[in-house]
Amino acid sequence: MDDGDRILLAHGGGGELTAKLVNNVILAGLGDAATGSLDDAAVIDVPGRIAFTTDSFVVKPLFFPGGDIGRLAVCGTINDLAMRGARPLALSLAFIIEEGLRMSVLKRVVSSVACAAGQAGVKIATGDTKVVERGSADGLFINTSGIGVAPPGVSVSLSLARPGDEIIVSGPVGNHAIAVLAQREGLSFKTTVESDVAPLNRLVTALLDELGTGLHVLNDPTRGGLAMSLNTIAAASGVAIEIDEHSVPVDSAVAFAAEMLGLDVLTLPNEGKLVAVVAAGASDRSKNVLSDAGAHPRTIGRAKKGSGVTLITAGGGRRVLEAPYGEDAPRIC
Amino acid sequence: MDDGDRILLAHGGGGELTAKLVNNVILAGLGDAATGSLDDAAVIDVPGRIAFTTDSFVVKPLFFPGGDIGRLAVCGTINDLAMRGARPLALSLAFIIEEGLRMSVLKRVVSSVACAAGQAGVKIATGDTKVVERGSADGLFINTSGIGVAPPGVSVSLSLARPGDEIIVSGPVGNHAIAVLAQREGLSFKTTVESDVAPLNRLVTALLDELGTGLHVLNDPTRGGLAMSLNTIAAASGVAIEIDEHSVPVDSAVAFAAEMLGLDVLTLPNEGKLVAVVAAGASDRSKNVLSDAGAHPRTIGRAKKGSGVTLITAGGGRRVLEAPYGEDAPRIC
Repeated sequence: MDDGDRILLAHGGGGELTAKLVNNVILAGLGDAATGSLDDAAVIDVPGRIAFTTDSFVVKPLFFPGGDIGRLAVCGTINDLAMRGARPLALSLAFIIEEGLRMSVLKRVVSSVACAAGQAGVKIATGDTKVVERGSADGLFINTSGIGVAPPGVSVSLSLARPGDEIIVSGPVGNHAIAVLAQREGLSFKTTVESDVAPLNRLVTALLDELGTGLHVLNDPTRGGLAMSLNTIAAASGVAIEIDEHSVPVDSAVAFAAEMLGLDVLTLPNEGKLVAVVAAGASDRSKNVLSDAGAHPRTIGRAKKGSGVTLITAGGGRRVLEAPYGEDAPRIC
Repeated sequence: MDDGDRILLAHGGGGELTAKLVNNVILAGLGDAATGSLDDAAVIDVPGRIAFTTDSFVVKPLFFPGGDIGRLAVCGTINDLAMRGARPLALSLAFIIEEGLRMSVLKRVVSSVACAAGQAGVKIATGDTKVVERGSADGLFINTSGIGVAPPGVSVSLSLARPGDEIIVSGPVGNHAIAVLAQREGLSFKTTVESDVAPLNRLVTALLDELGTGLHVLNDPTRGGLAMSLNTIAAASGVAIEIDEHSVPVDSAVAFAAEMLGLDVLTLPNEGKLVAVVAAGASDRSKNVLSDAGAHPRTIGRAKKGSGVTLITAGGGRRVLEAPYGEDAPRIC
């Protein structure tokens, strides 16, 4: 390419230079992960009910242990679809790039998008690229929107938790936030904490196949963490939720780092974990299929009559677990 | 709201403050234009073939004569769907907001989104809101993605222009770019030029109803303008295109401003115009239905055997009209 190794403002102009950037860097980097030409609009054959979602990603820094903004964007959007019980069908990929970004950075991100899309079995169907002047954006922002097919008969919803239901988390919490924060602040701990960023669609398919209508609620505890997720479910379903603090899985390096940083691990965003609310008695079967799919699930509590989320502490005490108010850790996703 | 009149970083945290922003400002401002709760993923019933598109908007300034970033985002995405012959069904709406943005600015933009969506008859189905620190973005960026239904039997495509076809533009070109540039540079002319930003879906429906398979190509000349649009069509269809320069409609204030700024009006982005390539003999009927729908269409040229785009000048000379290389006018959309 004749544009050297940095993004120019002219790369956003919609002319030949934009076409070169899209063809030589983005489409070439996506390879099989793209459906073809990334037209302004893709046409996709689908039967039935469509799930539709959007997310913008502004994570800082762009690269962190265990992932980067490209992997995060693909997984975040796939996971929003999967949490509605939908099979992801196609993603869009829109870049807002700051003038001067190194071409090699964009290439690494595109390659990571392709890799995550391949892992989840989803194609990029349409895209957009804008460039803004130096100082007008922080390197690179990505929006991924997605459509998925909601299979007939699947009805998972935030409002379907019932008293007696059991609550499962698919693995340890807090890893993504600590990985990003440690990288950003230049902190190092004895053990490097890696982000958990991963597509959850295969875990969801396994759960749906095993439980059918016994799977009541799915949610991924991203911004606001487990605390936000559980409060959202309790409020939407009109139930109380009781969590056993000691049964919430937290890696020791994450617990240590959160303690050092003065952060509550229950409010930290995750990018590769799900909360499932399942019918009474279905938790063992749920954990078996999740384990078979490579997760490390734990039963962490139950739904009851009432309202709000209560944490039963290691010592047997009880405290209310509130939804976080504002922002403990900005630009984690 | 207890957050005063500016956006805080904490508005992006995913906690209660984010919920308040989404409910009190975004959902309240959208009113009937939203399908309901703007869940992480919306589920929509559809039959058949789906068109899917995405666009990010970084226009500077946010407000300009004739429109703003909100109207632009809705219309741009609706128009991408309409250019595939698809009926727009649902939009997503994702904000990246710079900390410190005035709440009143966000409210104006949301209200403008609602108005444009209402005009086009399309709902906002899902959304996302991120906040980045002061200096990390330029006020406000918006991504709108969209899905539409491609009716059976409709096959408009960039590759379907045939020798003998006639080429129509739905109205004068250059207005959007000049309106934004004049506002940004603080230029004033005797006549204020207003942006043409508008949804084109109703014009497309009228054309499809009248012409059926006689409608071969649709394209909206956005970034890169008419020059980019015509070159794209010629290349995709493997035909030559000949344009009569004097028949391309340009408002006199736009022509004057473009001349002053040293810009070629044929390369300037439009946001409410379409190019239609129609079967030989169908141009009068096309112009009639476009006129009835409120447009000011003109036949500007024809497709021939060969390749490339040729401009026949007022004096009868011929020159090649090339696709623009880079960027004449950054951040117009």
